[in-house]
Amino acid sequence: MATINDNYLKLKAGYLFPEIARRVKQFAGENPDAPIIRCGIGDVTEPLPQSAISAMKTATDELGNRETFRGYGPEQGYEFLRGAIAQNDYRARGLEISDDEIFVSDGSKCDTANILDIFGGNNRIAISDPVYPVYVDTNVMAGHTGQADAGGAYEGLVYLPATKENDFIAAPPSEKVDIAYLCFPNNPTGAVASKEQLKAWVDYALANDTILFFDAAYGDFIRDENLPRSIYEIDGAKNCAIEFRSFSKNGGFTGVRCAYTVVPQSLTGKTQSGESAPLHPLWLRRSTTKFNGVSYPVQRAAEALYSDKGKAEVAALINGYMENAAILREAARNLGMNVWGGEHAPYIWIEAPGEMKSWDVFDKILNEAHVVITPGSGFGKQGEGYFRISAFNSRANVEEVARRLQNVSW
Amino acid sequence: MATINDNYLKLKAGYLFPEIARRVKQFAGENPDAPIIRCGIGDVTEPLPQSAISAMKTATDELGNRETFRGYGPEQGYEFLRGAIAQNDYRARGLEISDDEIFVSDGSKCDTANILDIFGGNNRIAISDPVYPVYVDTNVMAGHTGQADAGGAYEGLVYLPATKENDFIAAPPSEKVDIAYLCFPNNPTGAVASKEQLKAWVDYALANDTILFFDAAYGDFIRDENLPRSIYEIDGAKNCAIEFRSFSKNGGFTGVRCAYTVVPQSLTGKTQSGESAPLHPLWLRRSTTKFNGVSYPVQRAAEALYSDKGKAEVAALINGYMENAAILREAARNLGMNVWGGEHAPYIWIEAPGEMKSWDVFDKILNEAHVVITPGSGFGKQGEGYFRISAFNSRANVEEVARRLQNVSW
Repeated sequence: MATINDNYLKLKAGYLFPEIARRVKQFAGENPDAPIIRCGIGDVTEPLPQSAISAMKTATDELGNRETFRGYGPEQGYEFLRGAIAQNDYRARGLEISDDEIFVSDGSKCDTANILDIFGGNNRIAISDPVYPVYVDTNVMAGHTGQADAGGAYEGLVYLPATKENDFIAAPPSEKVDIAYLCFPNNPTGAVASKEQLKAWVDYALANDTILFFDAAYGDFIRDENLPRSIYEIDGAKNCAIEFRSFSKNGGFTGVRCAYTVVPQSLTGKTQSGESAPLHPLWLRRSTTKFNGVSYPVQRAAEALYSDKGKAEVAALINGYMENAAILREAARNLGMNVWGGEHAPYIWIEAPGEMKSWDVFDKILNEAHVVITPGSGFGKQGEGYFRISAFNSRANVEEVARRLQNVSW
Repeated sequence: MATINDNYLKLKAGYLFPEIARRVKQFAGENPDAPIIRCGIGDVTEPLPQSAISAMKTATDELGNRETFRGYGPEQGYEFLRGAIAQNDYRARGLEISDDEIFVSDGSKCDTANILDIFGGNNRIAISDPVYPVYVDTNVMAGHTGQADAGGAYEGLVYLPATKENDFIAAPPSEKVDIAYLCFPNNPTGAVASKEQLKAWVDYALANDTILFFDAAYGDFIRDENLPRSIYEIDGAKNCAIEFRSFSKNGGFTGVRCAYTVVPQSLTGKTQSGESAPLHPLWLRRSTTKFNGVSYPVQRAAEALYSDKGKAEVAALINGYMENAAILREAARNLGMNVWGGEHAPYIWIEAPGEMKSWDVFDKILNEAHVVITPGSGFGKQGEGYFRISAFNSRANVEEVARRLQNVSW
């Protein structure tokens, strides 16, 4: 009799974004004429860069000729893309990452979930609160937690509150943890750790043999060159950190699907008997056995983002979204709200007026402004009383959202 | 101190295909002028159908306009593709599979690996021997086995010998198992189960509450309409079987990446406490949490394979490969060898002459004929003394392989 993975039964309700989709669908059904603007899920809206489109079409044509046809590629990514990534995102910035430390994948969500495969089931795991829900849910599914309490916090996880008191950047805990998730620029709060703050984490990790999962999916949204875009800007990080990056938000690839993960050769974990074991061969084995590589034309499209034209197009996309963020920040400030993020991140994190709960704000803004935001409580207990607005939209929509927010009966 | 997943350390040597690649690379390095022909890994060689190319380019262009841009799609696949699959591969053949029972993915290798996520760790698992190595390795990685013995067989797995005595189709075991992998047309042997043989498996599964993982990646290579292409042709299979299919081999998508998995709503497993639990919501939760969907242009390309033009192109591709298979079968027969497969599958399974070992045949054919085959022992203990030739190649190469095989000093 086949048994299921009972850990799935511990998961609370739906994943955040399907629940948002459900409420929006219901509202739209009841209000078919309401001009809904979506600033919820954090999905890009602007066209794919022409350099990517052109490269993707050329690569597709290559597949139409026997001489240039390609079947299975290397599971970990083509050399042309791994090389472009390592060179442009790391070595050109003075960070020594070799091509074979880059693993090309179809998404950072997948990678931050799948990376758990190569780790033991007995690690003590720290996450910030609020946090990207996938970090939590995938640990629940992997059996790394007990049950959730009434507030949705799972037994066995170490939650690090990210609150307005610490500017939404949690310091390393006093207790020892084996794995810690960091995400900067942060989803959902838009907070960005300084070099000093990241150094504290790297020092902690080196002292405690902790592995850091550093999610830098929004790294390219950092405007201030003094803020670290990569954990590897911190000395010692190659001995304690795995970094996740994505083309979803900078290149507009949410529907195209390409990301990458950096696993330095120098990283090690411990076997259950306490021996040192390098992580790179484990991730390589995982990738080659359970994955078959990213679509070839997609890899060519990602490569094109590193061309001169591609870089200019990516910069323009990011610039546009960041101007949106400034408009939304300003609109919320004008309402007298407390606002964070949106300066080096496409997310604006706002404290709800008065004692309002996050989902009440969600319903209110949906009902009165026909705008979809994300309730902060969906990201964890500490997110209660906050909401996130995404700057991923057209300028016209963002200006309209700013106008409509003024007309909500706050 | 972060611990690793020690189960990875149980894995024997490299995954089969990287080992082949290593030997070929070494040979090519030492013999730079040898005109190597690859009939090893089972990768397609012929151009992508024009219908797929055209659809993919059109979809890529859509992403270049704000009005037609798409970001995140549904993780389980777009309705247009799920509908085309369910209609064409199932309902048009009289099999009642609904659109929402189709989960679009980036590969059957990934799916047959990832499906284990939703099952418990205490299931007794049966696989045939020889077998596609991913089934075994992913169970090892998930901790479902003990150590391997000297012959590479893992403690805890139930191996079902598929030998020339049973025409390479294992019957259900006398003992109870909770999960069983079936693959027809078979990789590596090319054997295809009859309806009666599959019925025996479905009856066994229903009697024992076993879940069957039915890998039908090569289903479209079946020439005889009386042979089942889908497990759902057998009454009761919707209560015991998950089916995996792929566009890799019929549509030439090995580098494009698209596949799908069918999880009927009627399927159930048991919780650890013995309650019935439907599998469909678990796989949906897994898909939405750990995956972000297949690239939109790729999904459009897959959809195009179901157009009239696409169907004709797929049929021509398969026909070409199957003519290749006939040529290779004939060549091996002419050498007096015992040959199986190649009639409803792109693989020919050959008994090595005399007492030769599989890797010795591999080295001999590589050295003397400059042809890459796959050693049968790479698929399991029972594969020792056999080798597989893939029919995935151009007609000219296949004819050349047939000629060269005659000149090997058997």
